Amino acid sequence: MPDGDPMARSNGSTPPRGVPAGELLGEYLRGQAIAFLRGLSLRGEDDAAADELLRGSARRIGGVAHTYSALVDAGWAHGLGVELGWLSATLGREAQYAGRLERLSEALRRLSATGAAEAVVPVTAQPAEGSLRTAPPALALGAARAAALLERQLTLARTRAHSAALQALGSSRFHGLADAIAVLASEVPLTAEAQEPAEAVLPPLAGQAYRRLAEATAALPLHRAAHPYNAEAVQAALGPELTADLQDTPWHQVRILLRLSRYAAEVPGAVADEPRARRLAEAAVLLQRHREAAEAAAAAASAARTPRIAPATAYALGVLHADQRHDVEAARFAFSRLWQPHAAGTVPGPGTREE
Amino acid sequence: MPDGDPMARSNGSTPPRGVPAGELLGEYLRGQAIAFLRGLSLRGEDDAAADELLRGSARRIGGVAHTYSALVDAGWAHGLGVELGWLSATLGREAQYAGRLERLSEALRRLSATGAAEAVVPVTAQPAEGSLRTAPPALALGAARAAALLERQLTLARTRAHSAALQALGSSRFHGLADAIAVLASEVPLTAEAQEPAEAVLPPLAGQAYRRLAEATAALPLHRAAHPYNAEAVQAALGPELTADLQDTPWHQVRILLRLSRYAAEVPGAVADEPRARRLAEAAVLLQRHREAAEAAAAAASAARTPRIAPATAYALGVLHADQRHDVEAARFAFSRLWQPHAAGTVPGPGTREE
Repeated sequence: MPDGDPMARSNGSTPPRGVPAGELLGEYLRGQAIAFLRGLSLRGEDDAAADELLRGSARRIGGVAHTYSALVDAGWAHGLGVELGWLSATLGREAQYAGRLERLSEALRRLSATGAAEAVVPVTAQPAEGSLRTAPPALALGAARAAALLERQLTLARTRAHSAALQALGSSRFHGLADAIAVLASEVPLTAEAQEPAEAVLPPLAGQAYRRLAEATAALPLHRAAHPYNAEAVQAALGPELTADLQDTPWHQVRILLRLSRYAAEVPGAVADEPRARRLAEAAVLLQRHREAAEAAAAAASAARTPRIAPATAYALGVLHADQRHDVEAARFAFSRLWQPHAAGTVPGPGTREE
Repeated sequence: MPDGDPMARSNGSTPPRGVPAGELLGEYLRGQAIAFLRGLSLRGEDDAAADELLRGSARRIGGVAHTYSALVDAGWAHGLGVELGWLSATLGREAQYAGRLERLSEALRRLSATGAAEAVVPVTAQPAEGSLRTAPPALALGAARAAALLERQLTLARTRAHSAALQALGSSRFHGLADAIAVLASEVPLTAEAQEPAEAVLPPLAGQAYRRLAEATAALPLHRAAHPYNAEAVQAALGPELTADLQDTPWHQVRILLRLSRYAAEVPGAVADEPRARRLAEAAVLLQRHREAAEAAAAAASAARTPRIAPATAYALGVLHADQRHDVEAARFAFSRLWQPHAAGTVPGPGTREE
């Protein structure tokens, strides 16, 4: 689920001129607070949907209060932001582990596929009778063992994340946060500046968020990423994990700034640029994929450090690690082409964005 | 060394009309025979240069006699072709193993690089004191061990190939071949058809070779390969080796047909299409890279099957395998863009062909 998009509000209809910014911002924040409370009441009934609502609204309240901080009480926004960040991270972990396991299992299935081969045996290269039916070789066995190892490790992590989420939801910290959101649902603490007309106040603040994003993106090695198979993301796959982390960090940073920009644009009257909004949504999907692949690669490397695994298992995990780092690179490539379609000599054509 | 190119003859100057085909073909074959004999006399002095000359001329004599078989004695051409193929393969193996080791060692160095990371540490993400100076982790250790293992295995293979080449050069089989080439240096066994004017006979035969190449290329999954990061070449990296072999075989076949077309075009008067000749030369480099990466990946997989290796070594070999299979895919991508630059929605721009 890309970032709780079902909850995104359309701001297709521009509000009439002269409406106070606080009115539109307040309406948006109250709406998100109500979604939060609805998520809360859904718990026990449909936990996945409930968590999705809780996390989506938590991220939006925190993000929008941050971007439009000049319009809301500063102390309130900061304190609430910290609590919302904690809740969103705590509730998100279980789904992340589940997604990571699914991604890695699927990759291992693809990497050890054999069915496809039999279909393409050319008549001129017919192998000796029975050679396709031999017992699975050590490498395929390694893939099966690697899948089992990852399933064990990630299921354990998932179970722990589930317990931690349950514990968080029962904590007094959470009850304090829920109370604050209940108050927000009826009353948004606005500043005097929020009385200004929306068209004078909201677009500059949303524009500031977008500029921060644009600056962080400009600092990315987009030129290199726009060359396919430049292997930068795969560089140092066998080096210290720190190397990959340092390389990935600016990309993750852009993902967060991108999210702030997207949420900022959801407030009616803030941004009237539909193509930009569409591009931000597409970019968010790519950077989400970037993050998932980077974390899946790290999980494969971490599993390979399990003591006493068989060499074939370790080998399969190595293949898996490199495969996921290549997916990191593919996501960067797609992002580069989306962000600066006419740069670096690679002109995107129809159908080249989706791999 | 891309295929003995220093020996390629320029056919920039078109021979005058009416010259018998046999005269031009004979001159070309005699020239290659003389290069072969020069290579032979260089042995003991500069073995690498000698082998390069021997292999380059052997491949050209065999290839050109095959393409223009209507113009030369059929039995002679077939028998000589078999012997030249044997010699070329036998002499080529040592350099192949050396090149494979170099390619894999370089990839391992790149994959375990750490220096690059230190240079890009952003000020805001300064790691804790000394954390970049910790002992190399298990994965980097695995890379060093994998490099040592590959060096042992490929050096052994190389030494064996060297002995086999020496043995071949001392064999009566080789002396028979050298005698046949010495005869060729003064007399080419031409057919009656070779008396026809070159412009009537050579271009159709060269065109036939090119058509065979074009047909084989059209049967490749170029559309898929033209989408970067489609991961087809990485598919089944953990499956039976047969799967990769079957997938690679049509590409290797195209490499051989490409070589035949290139050599056919070296005969003066055969092809007057300079851009095509350039494209064939570029394509040859890419398919050579395709082959080397595919064979390097297989060598990594084979090393991983060594009994009693450490899991970290196996892990590094897995990363290496996937990395080389991705290079297979990168070569296919570059080939697709070279061969059908306007297909599949990927329009190549300046500077995107070289990674």
